[in-house]
Amino acid sequence: MKLRNLLYAQSGGVTSVINTTAAGVIETARASNEIGKVYAGKNGISGILKEELVDTSLESDTQINLLKYTPGGAFGSCRYKLKDPKEDPTQYTRLLEVFKSHNIGYFLYNGGGDSQDTTNKIASFTKKSGFPVQCIGIPKTVDNDLPFTDNCPGFGSVAKYIATSTQETALDVKSMADTSTKVFIMEVMGRHAGWIAASSSLASVEKNDPPHIILLPEIRLSKTKFINKVKRTVLDNGYCVIVVSEGLRDIRGNFLSDSGRVDAFGHKQLGGVAPRISEIIQDKLGYKCHWAVPDYLQRSARHLSSKIDFEQAYGVGKAAVELCLAGENAVMPIIKRNKTKKYSWSIDKINLSKVANIEKKLPKSYISKDGFGVTGKCKEYLKPLIEGEAFTPYKNGLPVKAILKNKLVKKKLKEFS
Amino acid sequence: MKLRNLLYAQSGGVTSVINTTAAGVIETARASNEIGKVYAGKNGISGILKEELVDTSLESDTQINLLKYTPGGAFGSCRYKLKDPKEDPTQYTRLLEVFKSHNIGYFLYNGGGDSQDTTNKIASFTKKSGFPVQCIGIPKTVDNDLPFTDNCPGFGSVAKYIATSTQETALDVKSMADTSTKVFIMEVMGRHAGWIAASSSLASVEKNDPPHIILLPEIRLSKTKFINKVKRTVLDNGYCVIVVSEGLRDIRGNFLSDSGRVDAFGHKQLGGVAPRISEIIQDKLGYKCHWAVPDYLQRSARHLSSKIDFEQAYGVGKAAVELCLAGENAVMPIIKRNKTKKYSWSIDKINLSKVANIEKKLPKSYISKDGFGVTGKCKEYLKPLIEGEAFTPYKNGLPVKAILKNKLVKKKLKEFS
Repeated sequence: MKLRNLLYAQSGGVTSVINTTAAGVIETARASNEIGKVYAGKNGISGILKEELVDTSLESDTQINLLKYTPGGAFGSCRYKLKDPKEDPTQYTRLLEVFKSHNIGYFLYNGGGDSQDTTNKIASFTKKSGFPVQCIGIPKTVDNDLPFTDNCPGFGSVAKYIATSTQETALDVKSMADTSTKVFIMEVMGRHAGWIAASSSLASVEKNDPPHIILLPEIRLSKTKFINKVKRTVLDNGYCVIVVSEGLRDIRGNFLSDSGRVDAFGHKQLGGVAPRISEIIQDKLGYKCHWAVPDYLQRSARHLSSKIDFEQAYGVGKAAVELCLAGENAVMPIIKRNKTKKYSWSIDKINLSKVANIEKKLPKSYISKDGFGVTGKCKEYLKPLIEGEAFTPYKNGLPVKAILKNKLVKKKLKEFS
Repeated sequence: MKLRNLLYAQSGGVTSVINTTAAGVIETARASNEIGKVYAGKNGISGILKEELVDTSLESDTQINLLKYTPGGAFGSCRYKLKDPKEDPTQYTRLLEVFKSHNIGYFLYNGGGDSQDTTNKIASFTKKSGFPVQCIGIPKTVDNDLPFTDNCPGFGSVAKYIATSTQETALDVKSMADTSTKVFIMEVMGRHAGWIAASSSLASVEKNDPPHIILLPEIRLSKTKFINKVKRTVLDNGYCVIVVSEGLRDIRGNFLSDSGRVDAFGHKQLGGVAPRISEIIQDKLGYKCHWAVPDYLQRSARHLSSKIDFEQAYGVGKAAVELCLAGENAVMPIIKRNKTKKYSWSIDKINLSKVANIEKKLPKSYISKDGFGVTGKCKEYLKPLIEGEAFTPYKNGLPVKAILKNKLVKKKLKEFS
């Protein structure tokens, strides 16, 4: 009997190690003798609907190895939500046709909460259809907001980047504060959950070490309390470093980046909570401020990935294939923190039906009393996730990246609209 | 005779390797038997006026070695311009008092063009005063805008950071462009000279590789031409990566970040050319844009310094002390590019009178015809400057930094006002 093929797809915002997971999938499948070819959806599920399947068997072992060091989504990702099959099964019927035409026995979907809801729906649909496909979710998100898994592959590297950048920029600001910038504000990702902002706390070792203030999306900003805290920090330390989540809300629950400002033509101003915070401080206290918005730099900084994150990202890819081989369906490998004194982790699994659409925010016990920082408990949780360096190879002063052919498999179906 | 002491000070915006230069100074002076103690001005020249001198002899060899891996200015820097001694000699008289009281025979000032003007004035003043102090400038600036030196210590590391970040974020944007962000804009430092923006070009190897557009402060922005170029790039490649200098000006010569926008309270909006560019594109083309402003991250990213920059930063510190020992005065070591096939460099020197207050911009031959990029000649110049990695040691997942005592020498003079 012809071996059934495996179809892997990336979904949602990419990370610096999502391709490391892809390498874990491909290398594990290649090493097995029970799986046919590994295909990858071009631009995720949206490409699969168009029958655009990348044939990864055409890529050399060297390039697949280099995937581990390549940020972004090597096959393309997408922001695309399938409809509910109960309301409109067209997309699911199409997916099934694609699966059948290309002898897909395994579907691996690498994404966050929304995507795992989709994986679960596809699993149910194919099961009922009489053409069962083993559907396995693979966790990924820089936001670290998936439930059940101790942490999400992709997060540890952002945490390391943000903690390092906080440490580095704080040294810069400190050295200039006497005659120049007194307040530095760094805006980080996190619309609803403050995990990334919280990770900046790892830069702080001694009391009064920066960051002095962390503004979390879980805590609504009281301007008066905030201004007082900034003033006190500058008086005590000579400078103040602030890390703010993009999703920070004011006391009435409105996003701060939604400032209501308009330009000369009446156009509404676009995002950026860091410049807004800077403005508030300059208005109220007159301190010279600088602000930074690393944006995509933080989630693509493969050059500074953590070794733990790298290993876990690879690990969940490998585990997903092993779950296929073990006959599992509608499950997702997750990271489990072992009950050891020194940090260690293992891989467990969870049913996809449990994961879908739950967002894990910072628990109360992780947020400091005054709401402007995190607790020791939070730092204990975060610490091991940034451990170790997963350096990339370099050539001509720049990180070496995979260059894939990304050749599509010949289409067999009619166009899908 | 008692050996005369050396006074070192940092000036202006700091870099990721200015402390590497400090280590070069201190280690070379320690190894010599002709120099007494090495003092460092607390917060640069402003601390020296206050007789605030750090005694670096109290720091261990280990911590001085760690300085090489520590961004920011370890003794503090300042933005402070001395008056012209012809108009008001008070500050110079005070400096002389400080020099005399602490037996300073050598003054080393580590800064950009403005600072070297100061060094030169101090050299002239002390010479005339009958208490000659050998004054040596040491080049430093991320902007790479000093004349005579082939490049400036501090620049190569920013260039490496910006080229790497361009490469990494471009992979991120490319993978999402089909259904999400189509245009990514990164704002980099450079108010008058486009060297940092130009360095992003090193991320591009093949034709059509990102960055697709570089907006330089040397070229005034024609909005129509720009919008057409963005549109064409997205049509051809599916996405567009833009790197823009903070000092970009419009066709009338006004800074783009000076947008004339006001908030609900009538306050003028603060800086940020990247959000402004994003707005223009969204208005005219409707593409989803993302923007980043790495700000201080770029100039403090010691974790990604180039080896060449690291070695040159150390080299100019070492050379400055050697110039002292050779009896030189009012000179500055500079980097010379040797006429070898493979890149190599050596250290030369220049009279400070020549350096002062000249700003080196991108020459015309380095800017592409359409004004939206740089030439092959420019890339050939830039390439070697990002070569090699000068990795930092890590502990607990974060770069290890020097922790200095920064103990001040006992004051001998009255307070200065």
